[in-house]
Parts: sequence; C-alpha cells; structure tokens
Amino acid sequence: MNIEQLRADTPGVAHLVHFNNAGAALMPEPVIEAVTNHLQQEARLGGYEAAGQQAAALDNVYNAIGRLINAQPDEIAVIENATRAWDMAFYSLPLRPGDVVLTSTTEYAGNYIPYLQLKKLRGIELRIIPNDEHGQVSLPALKTLLEDERVALVSLPVIATNGGPVQPIEQIGALARAAGVLFLLDACQGVGQMPIDVKRIGCHMLAATSRKYLRGPRGMGFLYVEKALCQNLEPVFLDLHAASLQTPDTFSLRGDAKRFENWECNVAAKLGLGAAVDYALAQGIEPMWQRIQHLASHLRERLAMIPAVTLQDQGTLQSGIVTFTHRHGSATQVQHWLAGQAKRINVSTSTFRSTMLDMQQRDLLEVSRASVHAYNTEAEIDTLAAALTHLPRA
Amino acid sequence: MNIEQLRADTPGVAHLVHFNNAGAALMPEPVIEAVTNHLQQEARLGGYEAAGQQAAALDNVYNAIGRLINAQPDEIAVIENATRAWDMAFYSLPLRPGDVVLTSTTEYAGNYIPYLQLKKLRGIELRIIPNDEHGQVSLPALKTLLEDERVALVSLPVIATNGGPVQPIEQIGALARAAGVLFLLDACQGVGQMPIDVKRIGCHMLAATSRKYLRGPRGMGFLYVEKALCQNLEPVFLDLHAASLQTPDTFSLRGDAKRFENWECNVAAKLGLGAAVDYALAQGIEPMWQRIQHLASHLRERLAMIPAVTLQDQGTLQSGIVTFTHRHGSATQVQHWLAGQAKRINVSTSTFRSTMLDMQQRDLLEVSRASVHAYNTEAEIDTLAAALTHLPRA
Repeated sequence: MNIEQLRADTPGVAHLVHFNNAGAALMPEPVIEAVTNHLQQEARLGGYEAAGQQAAALDNVYNAIGRLINAQPDEIAVIENATRAWDMAFYSLPLRPGDVVLTSTTEYAGNYIPYLQLKKLRGIELRIIPNDEHGQVSLPALKTLLEDERVALVSLPVIATNGGPVQPIEQIGALARAAGVLFLLDACQGVGQMPIDVKRIGCHMLAATSRKYLRGPRGMGFLYVEKALCQNLEPVFLDLHAASLQTPDTFSLRGDAKRFENWECNVAAKLGLGAAVDYALAQGIEPMWQRIQHLASHLRERLAMIPAVTLQDQGTLQSGIVTFTHRHGSATQVQHWLAGQAKRINVSTSTFRSTMLDMQQRDLLEVSRASVHAYNTEAEIDTLAAALTHLPRA
Repeated sequence: MNIEQLRADTPGVAHLVHFNNAGAALMPEPVIEAVTNHLQQEARLGGYEAAGQQAAALDNVYNAIGRLINAQPDEIAVIENATRAWDMAFYSLPLRPGDVVLTSTTEYAGNYIPYLQLKKLRGIELRIIPNDEHGQVSLPALKTLLEDERVALVSLPVIATNGGPVQPIEQIGALARAAGVLFLLDACQGVGQMPIDVKRIGCHMLAATSRKYLRGPRGMGFLYVEKALCQNLEPVFLDLHAASLQTPDTFSLRGDAKRFENWECNVAAKLGLGAAVDYALAQGIEPMWQRIQHLASHLRERLAMIPAVTLQDQGTLQSGIVTFTHRHGSATQVQHWLAGQAKRINVSTSTFRSTMLDMQQRDLLEVSRASVHAYNTEAEIDTLAAALTHLPRA
C-alpha cells in the first residue's frame, strides 16, 4: 500500500490524529469532491436536473457495492443510513408469535431495541447465543440453538461497536443455512475494513453504512437482500419508487432490492458513497485489512506497555477497533483530554447502554475506543500511547 | 421583497430559468455554504467531532422549524426525507381492521400506495373525499363522511404534486377535530411556499421536505407530531436514539418527537435545512407567498394567451404550481425541448401514475408543471411563454 498517497488523499490527517474510524472515518478527497461537486451542480442546474446528468454515476453506486460484497447490483438498496437499512430488512420479515430470533452478546442497542419491540408487539422470542472462551459466538452452542424449529432468524454484528471479536460469520452463515434459518448481518463495522463476501458468508441480508470504514459521507448506507428472498419480502414502507400503482385499487412491487428504497434521497451523499466504494476497491480491501490489523496489533502492543491501561479486546480474530480502560479516568474523560489542548487526538467512548449485554457480562461501564484505519501510522499510534502514558489522574 | 438580493443569493439563476421549484428549488448561498462548510469540517475534524462543534446550530434547526410552522421544537423530528417522515407518522398509527382513512383525489401515489398496503395488510378501508365544483375537497361531503365513527384518519396533501387547488386545510382541520379524528397533513408543497401554522390548521401530524419551496438540500425532511399525540404513538422503527435500553429486557421511548428519528443522519444536510428555514423566515413567508401567487397568476395569464396551451389548474385558491398541456407535444417532450439547446428552461412533468385518481377524473395522462418561486421574475415567465408559443409540432 502507498501510505503516503493514502495520507495525501486525506486532508484531515494534516489537522489531527484520527482514531475514530469506527465512528466516522476521515473522507478522502475523491469522496469530498463527489459530494461537493454534486451540491454545486444542484445549485447551478436544479436538484432533479443535476441528478439526471449523473444517471450513469448513480447506477455505478450499485455496481461498485456489488463488487465490494460480491452481490448483484439488483440485490442492493441504497438507504439513508445503516440503521434504516437494517430496519427495512428486520421489520419487513414476516416474524410471527413464537418465532425465535438469535443474536450475540455483542449486539448493538440500535438493533437490540427492535428485537424487544417485536417481542412486545409480535410475541417473538429473543435468545442470546452464548460465547466461547474467546468471547465470540460459540458455534456448538449456536448449532444446538438452531435445532429448535421455531428459530426464524440469526441476526448479529460482524464486529461490535465496542470492539471485541470479529465473529466467525462464515461458520455462522453455514450453520444458519444448514438449518434453513435466515441470517441478517450487521456489517457496519466490517464493510470497508475487511473482506465481506455475501456468498462466502451465506447471509441473506446485510446492512452497512457509508461513514465508517468505507470513508463515505454521513447519512448514507445500504442493504443487501439475496435475490430469492427479496422477491418474497414486502417492505414495511412503500412508496411510488418501491412500488407502482396499477389501478386505484392495486399496486405492484418492483422486482429488485430497490423495493427497500424510496424515491427521494440525498443524491450528493449517494454519489459520495459510490466514490468511497470505488476508492476502497482501488486500494484493495485485502491489503487495507492487513494494514488495519497490523496497526491495531501495534497499538495493542503499545497500550499493553502502559501500566494504567487495561486492554479490553476479545476474540481470536481482532479488528481495527481497539478498546481499553484507563485507571486515571473514565472513557469520557480520556476522550475529552485527548481531544483537547494541542493534542487533537480523536478517540471515542463506548457506553454501557449501547452494548449492554456484553458490557454487563464483562463488568464494564464504558470503554475507550481507538479505531485505526489504513491511513493511520505507527507514529500516530506512538503519539496516542505517549499521551495515554501521561494522562493525569482525574 | 428585495428581488435583486434574492437573485444575488441564488447562483443558479445566472445559468438557467428554473421553474421546477416544486421538484427541487435552487438553493440560496447560505444553504450551499452551510452544507459545504460542514462537509469540509467533517473532512478536517471527523464526522462526529464536527457535529459536536455544531450542537447549537443543530438545536436551532428544531427552533427554526418550530417558528416556521408555529410548533414547539420538541414536536419536531428531523428525518431523512418527507417520504420517510410521512411514513413514520402514518405507519405508526394504531390503525385496525375496519378503520377508515379519508383522503383527497389529489393524493400522491407515494402516500396512496401505503393506504392500499395497509388496506391489504391491516384491513383498513380507504374512502376518497369528493371534490366540490372547484376541484377541491368538498367540505360538506367531508362532514358527512366524518359522521361514520369508523373514520380514524384524514390524510391529504395541502397542494398536490400536479398543482391544482390549495386545499381548505383550516376548515378540514376544524372538521376533523370536531369529529375527534386524526389529521395528517402532507405539506411538502406548502412549507416554504405559503404560511403553514399547525395550530390554525389543527393538524395532528405534518410532514414536509427540505428541497422544494424551502430551498434546502435534498435528502432531508421533517415531521411535526402534536405533543399530546406523540406521547401515545410508538414509532414503527426504534433505535437507541428514539428509545433507550433500561435493562436487557426493557426499553423506554424518549418523550419528544425525536422518538421518530434515528441516531445517524446527514448532519451537513440537516444544517442546510436549518439554514434554509432561517433564510425563508428572514425573507418573510407572507411576502414570499404574495409574490409566488403574483408570479403564478402572471404565468397563467401569459399561458392563457397561447392558443396551443391549455391551463389545467383548479381550485379557488391556486399555488405557485402552474400546470398545462400543449397541443404540440406531450409533457415529456415539452420538458425536454425547454431544457435543451440554448433555452435552459427547467419545467417538469407530472405523470398519470403519481396522482392517478385526479388525472383519471380529469382525463389527463400527463401535465407540464411550471412551478414558480419568489426569486423568479416576470422576464423569466415571458421567456417561458415565448418558448411555448414557438414549440414546434412533435
């Protein structure tokens, strides 16, 4: 990888040390340009007229995402954000009273609350897949849980918002397929960071965001729905893009995954997502994943040398999300202290409420999260480690 | 109104004649700046870090919308677009089998399809309020329909996508209130064009978009939900912004209208919406509405003088959306011809499928739509009229 070029493409690195890539990564120039150029064109030509001129580029967004995750373009819906992409999949499933949903301890509250909502409203049952000794989904336990014929869905994140293991998603997918159970993968922290191949994983649905490891703009995401499933799912929301009126009494749904979209969208951000996927593909996902793992490993080594710091990562395969606690202060204090003064180091805080099961199980209230991307450097990691070494007692 | 200043604020007017304000209006400089500046800040500081610095401006978006429609800020949800804003309201209503929804012939397919969907899925019943002799909702007919105790909702657009009357929304609201029936107003074409006061209208819910008469960015909208109703509605989608986990088995919804939002959003576009509302308020909604009516009236007069043109507008009160047919070509042909060559005049086409009931009733297949805004001029109208006078036969 050409790290100098990566950094030259990333104006933000001149201003700060950014380790909040799991929140929102720094956009590279081609993304910033795609978004701002289109905004300028909208101001010059009109919003619809500018979109009309970008028809080919807008089609390319689907092609690029298809290449990124090994799907067909017509299996992709571009949706306002990963939350709503995930919602459109989950809430559209025909879950009935007694149907069982399996999830991991690492599930995000943004998805977990919907499980509880449908437990209340539709009488579904929620079961948590136990972890193995490495803190990741236990495959034997999952296999046993899948023996219950009432299990209708396996739904979990590939990587949790608060770090932890990269879940063994291909094995999970294989078990779900073998049991004839749907598998909804939240790939928000995975897409752009590591190779994600829906065919290898065997997931039926996958939701992802633009702003994290893909380095696209905020307010944009996408949903993959396997073709055979898509045609049998009626989205919980419909409009005149997802469906069309045949007569005043009848409508028909479109055949492709765009049935999960709606007509109006932020076209500039959609083009920015396309530019971000193109950029990631041009760098190569595999070399980026190697570098992210290398940097994360370097960061973990440096943090392990600081007496006041405790690493909090689990799993046999770990990602670019590095989590820790610091004896001298809460994660919120650590974040503010690093961001302040002349340091300008961005890390973030993962709270108890956003991954309650996992935090409860590990007796944590919050953790600091330093998430590295390929454009980060060893020198930046050393800067962070030095700062954490000198963190004053709160 | 200072028209010169309005035009100086609008870079697009130097390049073209824009009569597609009902599609997406030309953004003024303060909006373009709000969006692009924030994108630059995101690239410089990180997406979350840039949003953190704009906390006050983000709060102001709710205050500004509140002032615009005479609501409290905590009755406002900022949502990805008007479609999803409307969806979050409509689909979250506890409609049961046999409940009757009343709508107008002018309803947009984007809303009409959801009615048909819930007719199929939940067994609701849909009834169309007949029009009076001016083509607008007949108030006596509505009053009669409201006598049926099964009526649960009145839901219609203040102004249709294909022009037509400004519906008598205050009288409709009064009748709905008197009958104890909820009133959901689609104000997409109204907000920014004319005074919209939720208290005077008496609507319980209102959905609107950023990109049309408000002149904000695409991919942004908002929902108003009256406080008393809001607290009794559970949104069809929830996440960790709309609700919060109390224990691994329980969650609670937030008390304000943000329960209809989700955590992730396009922050730059949200700030752009705020700038657009501030800009509209600074111009004054009432003088803009007067000017829009004046320009639309001038355009109708000019079009009435062209033998090949037939005006297609209805209603006792007409808006800035002027619709017509042309004997020399279809609306699609008219649109392309006006956009082409050196003319650069943007109009749009309203199709049969987007307002099927209305078009069917009036025996129309499509109409040309020239929608004027306050920044348009008489000279531009004369340019359009001259072009339409010389439209070659197809």
